[in-house]
Amino acid sequence: MKKLINSPGTVIADALRGIEVSDNRVRVDHTHRIVLRKEPKADGKVALVSGGGSGHEPLHAGFVGEGMLDAACAGEMFTSPTPDQIVAAIDAADTGAGTLLIVKNYTGDVMNFEMGAELTGAQVRTVLVADDVAVEDSTFTAGRRGVAGTMIVEKIAGAAAEEGMGLDDVASLARAVAASTRSMGMALTSCTVPAAGRPTFDLPEHEMEIGIGIHGEPGRHREPFTDAAHIARQLVEPVLADLNFGDSDVILLVNGMGGTPLIELYVMVAEVTALLEAADVRIARCLVGNYVTSLDMAGCSVTLTRAEPEWLRLYDEPVNTAGLRWGA
Amino acid sequence: MKKLINSPGTVIADALRGIEVSDNRVRVDHTHRIVLRKEPKADGKVALVSGGGSGHEPLHAGFVGEGMLDAACAGEMFTSPTPDQIVAAIDAADTGAGTLLIVKNYTGDVMNFEMGAELTGAQVRTVLVADDVAVEDSTFTAGRRGVAGTMIVEKIAGAAAEEGMGLDDVASLARAVAASTRSMGMALTSCTVPAAGRPTFDLPEHEMEIGIGIHGEPGRHREPFTDAAHIARQLVEPVLADLNFGDSDVILLVNGMGGTPLIELYVMVAEVTALLEAADVRIARCLVGNYVTSLDMAGCSVTLTRAEPEWLRLYDEPVNTAGLRWGA
Repeated sequence: MKKLINSPGTVIADALRGIEVSDNRVRVDHTHRIVLRKEPKADGKVALVSGGGSGHEPLHAGFVGEGMLDAACAGEMFTSPTPDQIVAAIDAADTGAGTLLIVKNYTGDVMNFEMGAELTGAQVRTVLVADDVAVEDSTFTAGRRGVAGTMIVEKIAGAAAEEGMGLDDVASLARAVAASTRSMGMALTSCTVPAAGRPTFDLPEHEMEIGIGIHGEPGRHREPFTDAAHIARQLVEPVLADLNFGDSDVILLVNGMGGTPLIELYVMVAEVTALLEAADVRIARCLVGNYVTSLDMAGCSVTLTRAEPEWLRLYDEPVNTAGLRWGA
Repeated sequence: MKKLINSPGTVIADALRGIEVSDNRVRVDHTHRIVLRKEPKADGKVALVSGGGSGHEPLHAGFVGEGMLDAACAGEMFTSPTPDQIVAAIDAADTGAGTLLIVKNYTGDVMNFEMGAELTGAQVRTVLVADDVAVEDSTFTAGRRGVAGTMIVEKIAGAAAEEGMGLDDVASLARAVAASTRSMGMALTSCTVPAAGRPTFDLPEHEMEIGIGIHGEPGRHREPFTDAAHIARQLVEPVLADLNFGDSDVILLVNGMGGTPLIELYVMVAEVTALLEAADVRIARCLVGNYVTSLDMAGCSVTLTRAEPEWLRLYDEPVNTAGLRWGA
């Protein structure tokens, strides 16, 4: 196993140091492994706290900053953060206006965020993201998995919180965005968890896994590798079959799994867009890149959010984080 | 070979379609394979035109837009664009105020951009970028290679042109930035050019190549893979030995080669920053990501620019492209 790391035991601590030195708008509580905004908390701002297993960067640690999260907890690799991390994040981020927890739907995450919410004195609401249409229940999940759509929820809810929206309204908004978001992913290769030192699963040279989870959990099926156009159909069709996207503007995210270069994601977005146009889906916004990753896995996912006009306005608001930046 | 492409023969055309559909601020001339800004040309703005072989995305096609390039020519994979592409790009971008060509120092690129400059009627200046300290002369180069530092030149000169700076001044600025920029890269794995279908070079399982070029050209030496801290020293020391960075603010770019996930780049930037701080280098700005890639190569490079205060101001100005975005 060759990776740009010092050792499997230090990779998360080292990566947190890297986020800290590369983004002077955040600070890291290394004891609790939480990333926080550096500037003083604005009174009355609802805090957005997320987190999950490490290995999906820039999600979540790279999404802390203006217009997005107030704090992110970095769990062990592909492992939920602990309740005490979550309590520390809530306590550091809360301004008295309450905290929204954005949680991907994995059993460990749900349990630990629930426990964290019970242990803190802050007023807390939770949104569960379960956007992956590939499978019901999975290795680490009861119900659908939370995958790349999580960043769309964080972006839109983050903008609303930045504007001063109250806790219950931000929570309702985040839940509505999550409920309007669907994703489907695929892998050309397995990821390799540093501590394991070998690929999580075996995938023969000429096969791919359709419906892969972001920890390498099994998807729907394997089939021979073909081409980008076929892969796009395998991702777009289940998403369109799951929710009616025809009557609304849509945010499209073509996301890389970490080991896929941008040139291939550009090829994918061309194919995905052609399919969506043929299905009369109106693509109002389009984002392409490696945002919700699975370590060094090669592959991609397609996420669609059926967006109300107000959500598009919030999506367009400035964001200033290590992993996602744009201006007004 | 498994890649998210339709066929080796269509990957560049398909990727250009992808850039076009994912960024509604650019248009693509598919005949000439050039990416252009969509909005009408502002009279009197110096045009910035770049380009090179494909396979380095987002460089250059993903850097067309407000605050950066006016046009980019996409050559065949790892192959210079042709003079007629370059002429078409200049003619489409030029407003009458002249065009600056930003050219990475490879023999084919230098020759074809020179020919393009001769064939167009526009007033043209050229900046050559040759920031790679790894080797003098190389497979495709007389003199040093142009690598990741090219994007720093494009960003700073792009902001100056956007503000209305004249042709000779933008050219001087770009040359000064190029002359103050140094890079050094390494690879854990080879890239695979789609048309070849197999890795460009063989790298044994436990070795790495130090000083790699962005087309997989040989670097300085191979050695056993160790860890991120050692790799950081192998990249930072030659850069610091080549230019005095101790008396100035510095822009730091830790760049991924395409197949390296962000978590590993975060680990690298932590190590690189520690070395720079020990050497009393003042890191004024820091950028981390896969920006100047070599298809699916795993590896990274370190770029330092010795920046005057005015360059930092220009670097901070808004940029709005598919591959690099930030606000005021």
